[in-house]
Amino acid sequence: MHENKAIVLATFGTTVETALSGLLSIRRAMTEAFPQIPVRMAFTANQIRQIWQRRAQDPIYLNTHPEVPDEILKVQGVLAAIANLQDRGVDTLIVQSTHIVPAEEFHDLGAYVRGLTSISTMKPRWRPFKTIALGRPLLGSYHLQRPYADDIRRAAEALSDDAALARDKKAALVYMGHGNHFFPSGGLYLEFAARMRQLYPDVLTLIATAEGFPDLDDILTDLCHHGVQRVILKPFLLVAGEHAANDLAGPEEDSWLSRLTAQGFEVTPVLTGLSQCPALVQIFIDHAAEAAADAGVELH
Amino acid sequence: MHENKAIVLATFGTTVETALSGLLSIRRAMTEAFPQIPVRMAFTANQIRQIWQRRAQDPIYLNTHPEVPDEILKVQGVLAAIANLQDRGVDTLIVQSTHIVPAEEFHDLGAYVRGLTSISTMKPRWRPFKTIALGRPLLGSYHLQRPYADDIRRAAEALSDDAALARDKKAALVYMGHGNHFFPSGGLYLEFAARMRQLYPDVLTLIATAEGFPDLDDILTDLCHHGVQRVILKPFLLVAGEHAANDLAGPEEDSWLSRLTAQGFEVTPVLTGLSQCPALVQIFIDHAAEAAADAGVELH
Amino acid sequence: MHENKAIVLATFGTTVETALSGLLSIRRAMTEAFPQIPVRMAFTANQIRQIWQRRAQDPIYLNTHPEVPDEILKVQGVLAAIANLQDRGVDTLIVQSTHIVPAEEFHDLGAYVRGLTSISTMKPRWRPFKTIALGRPLLGSYHLQRPYADDIRRAAEALSDDAALARDKKAALVYMGHGNHFFPSGGLYLEFAARMRQLYPDVLTLIATAEGFPDLDDILTDLCHHGVQRVILKPFLLVAGEHAANDLAGPEEDSWLSRLTAQGFEVTPVLTGLSQCPALVQIFIDHAAEAAADAGVELH
Amino acid sequence: MHENKAIVLATFGTTVETALSGLLSIRRAMTEAFPQIPVRMAFTANQIRQIWQRRAQDPIYLNTHPEVPDEILKVQGVLAAIANLQDRGVDTLIVQSTHIVPAEEFHDLGAYVRGLTSISTMKPRWRPFKTIALGRPLLGSYHLQRPYADDIRRAAEALSDDAALARDKKAALVYMGHGNHFFPSGGLYLEFAARMRQLYPDVLTLIATAEGFPDLDDILTDLCHHGVQRVILKPFLLVAGEHAANDLAGPEEDSWLSRLTAQGFEVTPVLTGLSQCPALVQIFIDHAAEAAADAGVELH
Repeated sequence: MHENKAIVLATFGTTVETALSGLLSIRRAMTEAFPQIPVRMAFTANQIRQIWQRRAQDPIYLNTHPEVPDEILKVQGVLAAIANLQDRGVDTLIVQSTHIVPAEEFHDLGAYVRGLTSISTMKPRWRPFKTIALGRPLLGSYHLQRPYADDIRRAAEALSDDAALARDKKAALVYMGHGNHFFPSGGLYLEFAARMRQLYPDVLTLIATAEGFPDLDDILTDLCHHGVQRVILKPFLLVAGEHAANDLAGPEEDSWLSRLTAQGFEVTPVLTGLSQCPALVQIFIDHAAEAAADAGVELH
Repeated sequence: MHENKAIVLATFGTTVETALSGLLSIRRAMTEAFPQIPVRMAFTANQIRQIWQRRAQDPIYLNTHPEVPDEILKVQGVLAAIANLQDRGVDTLIVQSTHIVPAEEFHDLGAYVRGLTSISTMKPRWRPFKTIALGRPLLGSYHLQRPYADDIRRAAEALSDDAALARDKKAALVYMGHGNHFFPSGGLYLEFAARMRQLYPDVLTLIATAEGFPDLDDILTDLCHHGVQRVILKPFLLVAGEHAANDLAGPEEDSWLSRLTAQGFEVTPVLTGLSQCPALVQIFIDHAAEAAADAGVELH
Repeated sequence: MHENKAIVLATFGTTVETALSGLLSIRRAMTEAFPQIPVRMAFTANQIRQIWQRRAQDPIYLNTHPEVPDEILKVQGVLAAIANLQDRGVDTLIVQSTHIVPAEEFHDLGAYVRGLTSISTMKPRWRPFKTIALGRPLLGSYHLQRPYADDIRRAAEALSDDAALARDKKAALVYMGHGNHFFPSGGLYLEFAARMRQLYPDVLTLIATAEGFPDLDDILTDLCHHGVQRVILKPFLLVAGEHAANDLAGPEEDSWLSRLTAQGFEVTPVLTGLSQCPALVQIFIDHAAEAAADAGVELH
Repeated sequence: MHENKAIVLATFGTTVETALSGLLSIRRAMTEAFPQIPVRMAFTANQIRQIWQRRAQDPIYLNTHPEVPDEILKVQGVLAAIANLQDRGVDTLIVQSTHIVPAEEFHDLGAYVRGLTSISTMKPRWRPFKTIALGRPLLGSYHLQRPYADDIRRAAEALSDDAALARDKKAALVYMGHGNHFFPSGGLYLEFAARMRQLYPDVLTLIATAEGFPDLDDILTDLCHHGVQRVILKPFLLVAGEHAANDLAGPEEDSWLSRLTAQGFEVTPVLTGLSQCPALVQIFIDHAAEAAADAGVELH
C-alpha cells in the first residue's frame, strides 16, 4: 500500500438504501483499479449525512438494515474524510467527483480542494498536503488538454445500451438531468443529447432537467414534432434516488411520467442510475487516473 | 464628481474602426447614466491593444484616421486602467463586463478583480481598494438574487427589432454567437434562442457559435426541418468586427453566409453588433447600476 | 450547549507524560470559562501525534499509563480536529493558539485557519464555516485594537511569582524561550524581559532562546556585567517537556544549567512550564474570549 | 534590452528634495548592475505621491526645482508602476524592497505582489504575469536558504565606516530605526546592534526606534551604564528625510539630539541616510539578483 496516498470519492450521497449499490459499485471499481490505494467514500450533502448519523445510532434501523455497510453508516463529508486521512499521514490525494456536470456542486468541491491546498506552512516540510488532485465530473470540465467535448462523446458511447433499448422498443429516449436554476449547465446536457443522436441516429434522444433549462416542455414540443409515440424515460443521474422515485416516475400529476402519459405517450420508466452502467463507471475511474497523471501522482 | 469612484468598461476590443462606434456608444451611455463618475474604456485583448499602441505612434495612421478618439488610441488593459485610477485616489470601482456570456473571458476578468481586491494591507486604511464590483455580462452570471434566466429574457426583449425584421421578411432569424471549445457556454445561447422563440412565436430564432457547441450544422438541420426558405443572419456579438466580416459574412466557402447560401437558403446578413441596439446597451448600464447597488456603492 | 460552536486549543503537544498536566489545565480552565462550548485539544506537531497514535495501540503502554486520558491518546491535528467538528454541524470555531510568540508556528496555524475559511461555496448556506476566529498567542500579535505591547505587559504581570522567587533568593531570573533561526521573534522575548525589569526593578530578568537570537552568550555577558552570583533558570515555554529536560537542565555540557554553572553561577533550575501558572493560563482564556468578541461570536 | 522584464524599486518615498539623491543612487546602481533591464522607481506612500503630483503641476515649484528629475515628478505607486509595465508587455518583474526590516510595509508590499501574481486566467498564455519576484529588505526576511541573520551580518559589515567614525571620536554609535507600535520588529534592530558590537568590539553600538520597542530610554540606561560621554547619532533609515530632520536632530525638546544632550552627552548627529553608503546599496542590488535567481529569472 502507498501509505501517504488515498482516493476520496466525493458524491452527493443518498438516503435510499436501494440506491447505495450504485455508489458502492463505483467505490469497488475504484478499489479494483487501484488496489494499492485506499478509497474513501464521502457524501457532500449535509442533510443526507445527518440522516445517516441518526440511523447509525438507531438500534432498530441497524437491526432492520444489516445490508448497509459501515462505510455508509459512518460516512463523512469531504472535509472530514480528507482531514482524517491527513491526520494519519496521507499527504497526496485524488478527490474524484462523481458529479455529472461541472456545475454548482463540482465548483463547491473545487472550493474545498483549493482551500485545503492553499494551506502553506513556512517550512515546506510541514505542509499538510503535497497534492490534492481533483478528478473531473462525467461530462468533463474546463481543461485545455482534455476537452469536455471528448468526455461527452465518451459518456454517449458508454450509454449504447440505452439507445439499443429505445431502438428495440421503437421509442424515443428521454433523460432527466438534474439542472440548476442559477448555474447554467443546460448546454452540457443538450450537447450530450446531440452527441447521442449523432452516435445513434435511429433513436431520438432528448434531455431536460428537473431544475432550470432545458425543461420538459421543450421535450414535449420536440416529441410531438417528431411524431413520437413511445418513450423510454430514464434518470441521467448517478443513482436512482429521490429524484427518480418522485420527480421522474412518481404518481403525482407533475411527475414526468404523469405529464408524458397525459400527453398521450406510452412511457416506460427505467429506474436505474448511471452508476449501474459499468462502462460509465469506468469513465470516473479513468478521470481519477488522469487527474493523478496530470498531477504527477503514481497510483500503482 | 465623486473623486474616489470610477467605472471601467471592460471589453475585448476591436481593431476595426467602423466597429468602434458601438463600443463608444456604450461608453457614452454609461457616462450619461452616471454623470458624476468617470468612465474608462479598457480592452482586454493584448494583441488588439498592441495594434492600437503601434497605430498611436504611426503618423500616417493618425493623419488618415482623425476620427479615432484618444481614448481608443491610448486604451489600456483592465489592470493598467484600474491601477492608474487607483494611483490618483480612486478606491471604489465598478468594472462592467461587456461580455455576452459568463464564460472564459468573464472568468478571466473576475480573476483580475479578485486578485486586486485580495490586496489586504495590515492597516485597513492603506488598502488600495475599498470595493471593486464586477457587473455581470449580458446574459447574466451565477447570482442568487439576480437569476441569469431573467437576464436572458431581458436580452430577448431588447432584440424585438430583430424578430420584427425576420417576421417582415418571412425569414428565420439566425444568430452567430462566439462560443468556446473548452468552456461550455452553449446552453446560454440555446436558452436565449428558446426564449426568443417563446417571446416571438411566429419567428424561428436559432443560434450557433463560431467555436464549439452548438455549431452551424445543428442549425442547418433545424432550418430544413422547419421548411425555412429565407434567413436573417446576424452576429450575436458586441460589435460587428472581424468575426462578422469574415466568419459570418465573408466570401470564403466556409463562412456562414456561403454555407447557408450553398444549402439553398436566401440569406440577408445584417452586420451590426449588439452594441448598436440602445435597449441592449441599457442592460449593461443596468448591470453596472446593480453591481454598484449590491456592493453598497452610490453612483449618483 | 451551543450545538454549532466549539473551541479548538491548538498546542504543539508533548510526549512527556508529566508535562500533560499543564496542557490539560489550560483545557480545563477553558471549559470552566465557557461551559456551553465544547473544547477540543489539538497537537500541531506531526511527530508527537504519531507517537501518541502508536502508544494508543500499545497495550503495555496503556496498562502502565492509566493516567493518560483519552483526549490525549486520540488527539488529532488542528485540521482533523476542526473537520470532525464541522462534520457534526459545528460551523463557528475559536481556534486558540497556545504559542508564546506570533512566529513560525502561529503563522502556520493561521494558514490552516485562512485555508479553511477561504472555502466559499456558491450558495452561502453550504459554506462549511461561518467563522473561524484565531486567538492570539501569549505575547500578542499584529492587532491594531489590541497592541502586542499590552499582551507583553500582562504576561509580565502574571509572572510576578517568578520575580518574587528571584528576589527572595537574591538571584537573577533567566528564562529560556524557544526562538527560531529563520523567523525573527527575539524582539518579543527581549521586550518581555525589559518589561519584567521595569515591573520588578529589583530583579534582573534576562531571556535568551534555544534557537536563534538572542542566545545564552548575550546573557552571560550581562550577568557578569551586573555582578550576578545566583540565577533562577526557568523555561519560558508552555510546558516543561523535552527542551526543559535536556537543553535547559540536562546533564550535557552544553545545557544552559551546565554552561551557567561552569561560568561560576549558582543556578537553581525551576522546571515548570508557563501553563502551570494560573494567571498566565487566564491570558489564553481571555485571548479566546477577545477573538470571539472581535468576530461577533457569543460564547455564553 | 529584455523586453518582457523590469525591476521595480519600491520605496516609501520622501518629499525632501535633498533626500532624493539617496533614492536615485539606488536606482542608478541598480541600472548599472542590470543594464539590460529597465528599472522603475515606485513610492509606496500615498501622501508623498500626492505631494509630488501637486508639485508636478505647480509651475513655480518646477521653476525653482529644476534638479528634480521626471521620474520623481511622475512617480507612481507600486501597483500603477507594475500595471503600466504589464500593459506594455512586461510579464516578469523583480520588485525590490528598499525597506530596512520585514515589517508592516514589507508585508504590505508582499500583499501587492501576491495579489497580482494570484491573477490566473483560464488559458495560461493570457496570464498577466509569469513571475513577480520580491527582493527581501535590508535585514532579510523569512527565507530558509538565505537566513536573515546573514543579512544582518552583511549590513553590519557594510557600515564599518560608521564604526570607524565612532572609534575615532571615542564615541558610542547610536542609531535611530523606524520601528512600529503594532508589528514587532525590535528584535531585528537589536540583533543588528549586537552584531555591530561583535564585529567592532571597541565601539558601543546601540539602536532604538522612533516608534515602539526598543525606545531611547533603554539606550540612555545603557549609555550611562557604560560611562559613555560622546555619541555619534545617526538615522538607521534609507534616507535622511523628515524623521532625521525632526525626530532625530530637530530643535524640539523631545528630539533625540535634545534628549541626549540634556542628559549630558556630547552628541554629533550625522544626517545621512543608509542609501548614501555604497556598500549598503550593494546589498539591495544583491537581494534583487538573488530574488531573480531564486525565481529562475535571468537578469543579464
